[in-house]
Amino acid sequence: MTLDPSAAGVFPIAPTPFHEDGRIDEASIDRLIERYLAAGSNGVTVLGILGEAPKLDAAESLAITARFIDGFGALPVIVGVSAPGFAAMRSLAHAVMERGAAGVMIAPPPSLRTDEQITGYFRQAVQAIGTDIPFVLQDYPLTLTVQMTPKVIRQIVTENPSCVMLKHEDWPGLEKITALRGFQKEGSMREISILTGNGGLFLDFEMERGADGAMTGYAFPEMLSAVVRLQKEGRRDEAHDLFDAHLPLLRYEQQQGVGLSVRKYVLMRRGILSCDAQRQPGSTLTAKARAEVDYLLERLERRDGKLASWLAAS
Amino acid sequence: MTLDPSAAGVFPIAPTPFHEDGRIDEASIDRLIERYLAAGSNGVTVLGILGEAPKLDAAESLAITARFIDGFGALPVIVGVSAPGFAAMRSLAHAVMERGAAGVMIAPPPSLRTDEQITGYFRQAVQAIGTDIPFVLQDYPLTLTVQMTPKVIRQIVTENPSCVMLKHEDWPGLEKITALRGFQKEGSMREISILTGNGGLFLDFEMERGADGAMTGYAFPEMLSAVVRLQKEGRRDEAHDLFDAHLPLLRYEQQQGVGLSVRKYVLMRRGILSCDAQRQPGSTLTAKARAEVDYLLERLERRDGKLASWLAAS
Amino acid sequence: MTLDPSAAGVFPIAPTPFHEDGRIDEASIDRLIERYLAAGSNGVTVLGILGEAPKLDAAESLAITARFIDGFGALPVIVGVSAPGFAAMRSLAHAVMERGAAGVMIAPPPSLRTDEQITGYFRQAVQAIGTDIPFVLQDYPLTLTVQMTPKVIRQIVTENPSCVMLKHEDWPGLEKITALRGFQKEGSMREISILTGNGGLFLDFEMERGADGAMTGYAFPEMLSAVVRLQKEGRRDEAHDLFDAHLPLLRYEQQQGVGLSVRKYVLMRRGILSCDAQRQPGSTLTAKARAEVDYLLERLERRDGKLASWLAAS
Amino acid sequence: MTLDPSAAGVFPIAPTPFHEDGRIDEASIDRLIERYLAAGSNGVTVLGILGEAPKLDAAESLAITARFIDGFGALPVIVGVSAPGFAAMRSLAHAVMERGAAGVMIAPPPSLRTDEQITGYFRQAVQAIGTDIPFVLQDYPLTLTVQMTPKVIRQIVTENPSCVMLKHEDWPGLEKITALRGFQKEGSMREISILTGNGGLFLDFEMERGADGAMTGYAFPEMLSAVVRLQKEGRRDEAHDLFDAHLPLLRYEQQQGVGLSVRKYVLMRRGILSCDAQRQPGSTLTAKARAEVDYLLERLERRDGKLASWLAAS
Repeated sequence: MTLDPSAAGVFPIAPTPFHEDGRIDEASIDRLIERYLAAGSNGVTVLGILGEAPKLDAAESLAITARFIDGFGALPVIVGVSAPGFAAMRSLAHAVMERGAAGVMIAPPPSLRTDEQITGYFRQAVQAIGTDIPFVLQDYPLTLTVQMTPKVIRQIVTENPSCVMLKHEDWPGLEKITALRGFQKEGSMREISILTGNGGLFLDFEMERGADGAMTGYAFPEMLSAVVRLQKEGRRDEAHDLFDAHLPLLRYEQQQGVGLSVRKYVLMRRGILSCDAQRQPGSTLTAKARAEVDYLLERLERRDGKLASWLAAS
Repeated sequence: MTLDPSAAGVFPIAPTPFHEDGRIDEASIDRLIERYLAAGSNGVTVLGILGEAPKLDAAESLAITARFIDGFGALPVIVGVSAPGFAAMRSLAHAVMERGAAGVMIAPPPSLRTDEQITGYFRQAVQAIGTDIPFVLQDYPLTLTVQMTPKVIRQIVTENPSCVMLKHEDWPGLEKITALRGFQKEGSMREISILTGNGGLFLDFEMERGADGAMTGYAFPEMLSAVVRLQKEGRRDEAHDLFDAHLPLLRYEQQQGVGLSVRKYVLMRRGILSCDAQRQPGSTLTAKARAEVDYLLERLERRDGKLASWLAAS
Repeated sequence: MTLDPSAAGVFPIAPTPFHEDGRIDEASIDRLIERYLAAGSNGVTVLGILGEAPKLDAAESLAITARFIDGFGALPVIVGVSAPGFAAMRSLAHAVMERGAAGVMIAPPPSLRTDEQITGYFRQAVQAIGTDIPFVLQDYPLTLTVQMTPKVIRQIVTENPSCVMLKHEDWPGLEKITALRGFQKEGSMREISILTGNGGLFLDFEMERGADGAMTGYAFPEMLSAVVRLQKEGRRDEAHDLFDAHLPLLRYEQQQGVGLSVRKYVLMRRGILSCDAQRQPGSTLTAKARAEVDYLLERLERRDGKLASWLAAS
Repeated sequence: MTLDPSAAGVFPIAPTPFHEDGRIDEASIDRLIERYLAAGSNGVTVLGILGEAPKLDAAESLAITARFIDGFGALPVIVGVSAPGFAAMRSLAHAVMERGAAGVMIAPPPSLRTDEQITGYFRQAVQAIGTDIPFVLQDYPLTLTVQMTPKVIRQIVTENPSCVMLKHEDWPGLEKITALRGFQKEGSMREISILTGNGGLFLDFEMERGADGAMTGYAFPEMLSAVVRLQKEGRRDEAHDLFDAHLPLLRYEQQQGVGLSVRKYVLMRRGILSCDAQRQPGSTLTAKARAEVDYLLERLERRDGKLASWLAAS
């Protein structure tokens, strides 16, 4: 299974489940996989920013990846390999590809500023990991502080045939999708897959602008799948209705630095994670914040008919 | 009318209306004032970041301020006086206070990093404008890149008796409100007013954490007023119901760099502004974006019973 | 007198002299002018970052500019007009050009990141001030955080015929001079003047790379003039000998944030400024730092034969 | 051999020598060690920013460290263990300490802004590696973008007894040394060692302000040793004379991003490295830059009597 530009649908960004004492929680990984598959996911992304990758040692990183690969069977697993140096990036990329990953994801380091620095970095990264490993270009200025214009993305795509997908999480980002799809229409850029992130905060309109799906960690991947499907079927109002029902919680999850603890808490409340622990350094929800999330879940349950059964199924 | 720590409710951040040719549009200012008052605003803030203040010359800044002061009568008008140098800050602050402003708002310059730099800057700013002018401390890290901890805010409040209000727009920011109110409860910080910004994205919970109201530019100040009032009356579910109905549009407005053009467009659709022009350099909405906002307005109208009459009244 | 691409030699960046009580010190301005002219300056730049421009109100800015224009007679005076908004930039630019300035200098605001943002900003700035005002492009990443590649500079020069000079103070910056001169040689960029800043820290080699001169505030403009002249005459070793004699002090002056207080102190020691006061917010030299500068001046005097007479002439 | 607060003198920051094909060049490491010892070094620091640490895989990092430990015998070897996550930091720290390192060096990640974030990070880092491993606090704002005030450094030192040394490379930084030594004098901070970096650009005065020595990569560690010794003996003029002779080259080396290639080139010219290759991504000196360095070496040789013999001894 190798990632190619036809990839579409929902690729959840998987958190890494830990026990309270910091050990990796394999049983929770298995439940995550089961739920992602039941939610109609088309693949999964591990060791991303959300996945607390820098807190894992090399052996753990590989073990987690392997567990997802085995669980997802024929479906593609993408592995985040961003690293401060190319030596570490190369060795992780090779290890996970040999183990059966479908591709890797690379984020630019925060020090990059000019267009030339950015395009140069990706040329070097591809040279480092090898031109035969499909990669996902991560465009996430809010966290990474690197700003890529549509032209810069086009140049990276053009210079590096192994770039098969854009993880789009610029904000605001709707016009960027339109610009990139415009490049393809006019023939100035080859086809790539565009999956959107940012917690799904604009997924409703991103699908209408031409995104192929979502790659993000919102704790109800069922909603992501349904919105993507409804939009592809042209059922716009229904897509927005479902999306809007989730937006109060989704917005709450999509808080820089706090989001992961909200997500782990919701996934625990849903019975998927056995606990919401993070490895150090991590954030924890205050009692007030937990109560707020509980309230949002109650409200969501009332508005979204399907939610009741999801929670029941936990 | 002088601003003091008891200020509460909704202070809309006013945009500056322009004609297509760039001249200031006084008739639209008057309609803005009328609507803000009808929406139950408790004051207004002009010449903020949203108000395109750096594109105005000194005479224009003063003329706009004067028009709002005259229109708001006994209600307080706050004027943004942030400037790269204290000379300009002082002369604008003195001019608007003499003309009847209730207080000024000061944002820290982006170069500040350490706690000492930040507290030192506000000591100097207060020395520059004079200790008798009430001021609002603007805490907006996402745009200003300056990060103030609750302790730093407490120190600024303590060292500068003329600091009467915090414009809170940290993100995430709920715990910051709780921390500051906790300082007051334990007696380590005197009372100040806290009004929240960030386009209102967390207003529902900010009120529950202890905010006194909202200071932001969302194009339906009626909603802001109603949510603030409902929360103060303890009608939590109703507050969230109304808030959630607006959240899809509110989230769309709250996009960095794009937000102003969305707001001006909505205010024009509502018949308040005669056009949605910005002075250069400004952003304009694409046709796709306008259609998206139109769609959100239609959906909002369907969900929010009161909206129909608001639009009708335009 | 209008600035054009043939400008060359030394344009000191003038500090703004203040009395201890913060008033502008006109007598010191006159002594500065006298010394700059005696040192063989080919022009002067006022209201730059070093000139504490943001601490001046509009009337003061114009008065200082006028005094330098009158003092420099037929020689060109460049005026810094960088401002957070185009309204202020335009009005200052027009005012100083009407009063007889030769051109203006524009620095990009710190928020710019991508190549398109940077080139777009200068198109808009030129539109704002008018295409008939010659301007100097300031490239100073260390302070301004904006990084312009040689290609971006070429694009700005090409798109804006009124760009006549680059104030080069990238660091490291030697290869940038070589790249820009290479563009001119190959015919892909028209001729512009390149004067270098950064306190002169690399002036010795910048001249060899193709710079036309220096635009910086080192407190011994006599050295800058002599090094520029010696290099133009091909007297390389002598140029370096003189430069090296000054390097210990020059390096001490070229400290971010502290530099201005060192310069004002040296200019006071030289009898040019009546005192070394800065307007608030400003930095002051500690007693230890003053003693260090005194020691460096003593050592310089011992090594540089000409220095003795300079100091004597004070 | 364990690092403690009495450490003083010169600890060169070692570059990592590579062959042209990217393999590690052990023979050059051995010559580096020999020269460092001959120059009177009191220890050495490996795997720092200069050491291209992110381009090394785990096995290589350990092998290089071991070679330096064996070569330095009883003298302390400090190992840079900064990493994006604590898992990697802990495993490298434990591995090198078991192999005989004297301590580790930790730099803060660029995302830290407020005083609380910075002090919190070091508490967590110490918890991660263990409180029994002596560590050096690296304060390098120009590259790391993290600004620590003297008070923040004092808090880190006070909260973490295993902090035994400050690698001081703030710029400007002279007053910081004075402030920290002042804290010690007044009894508000315990004794720590302060070694200075920044390429040595202010070593002359840093020693006079109270530094214990230098930890930097200037390609003539002999000069660093001599200046440190002369200053400790109170031979101020001689210290400055020697320092000033090297300053033109030292300044050339101390260019962000270019410095390493200059240093490797000089070390190659001195016969210590067999070549000046860097691993990708790396910078290379242009022909013009090499010629400039050659010229600076010639001039240095003429001014510094001892240099001739150093080069001859290669």
